[in-house]
Amino acid sequence: MVATPIGNLGDITLRALETLKLVDALLCEDTRVTSRLLAHYEVKRPLISCHEHTDDAKLGQIIDRLRQGESFAFVSDAGTPGLSDPGNKLVSLALEAGVSVVPIPGVSALAALVSVAGISFSWISTT
Amino acid sequence: MVATPIGNLGDITLRALETLKLVDALLCEDTRVTSRLLAHYEVKRPLISCHEHTDDAKLGQIIDRLRQGESFAFVSDAGTPGLSDPGNKLVSLALEAGVSVVPIPGVSALAALVSVAGISFSWISTT
Repeated sequence: MVATPIGNLGDITLRALETLKLVDALLCEDTRVTSRLLAHYEVKRPLISCHEHTDDAKLGQIIDRLRQGESFAFVSDAGTPGLSDPGNKLVSLALEAGVSVVPIPGVSALAALVSVAGISFSWISTT
Repeated sequence: MVATPIGNLGDITLRALETLKLVDALLCEDTRVTSRLLAHYEVKRPLISCHEHTDDAKLGQIIDRLRQGESFAFVSDAGTPGLSDPGNKLVSLALEAGVSVVPIPGVSALAALVSVAGISFSWISTT
């Protein structure tokens, strides 16, 4: 589960880029959106479409390939996957099948906002 | 305000690295911690210590240098700065002085956790 930028394309981590380059294929919501993203980072991997209308048979095939040792990265169109996209169903099936799932975290808009608010939050950590 | 990794050193964004290389100096809680971090990324910038015991006179000098056009990045020992570190006081003083403050976001442990929970959160976004 690899998080991708929401807005600024510089908001991707070294680990996310490394992972996208290492996997056998990328599972993505919209191959057009993800192919543009990969082109920006000069990453070339096969894309497999996996969205809310992907049927159980196809999800089963994906899980089978994972069990046979292939490695896939799941990305949503933008941001952290697995929230309001089909990623959570895939994660659930993968865990049932004994396939390990690793989160590659992305940026947090909330923490970014708080970091420039100029307000002390130290009372939270000291109580 | 530049977020740095909490655990895995690969969890830093391209934009954070670019910013650390571009600024005139880094304000940091502990110069030993931050110098180790910069060494890992092969970034060489002057370090200015800025922690909870930094007095108002020194903070004032920092603000003066910012007003004269210097650019500084503030980093905490790890994670997103400005939460439970002296960053929030500095942000507050900078904003009062009319100095612009830009957040460079970092990774979110919370979102990473949710992304591999295998639970559908779509009811949140569809209601």
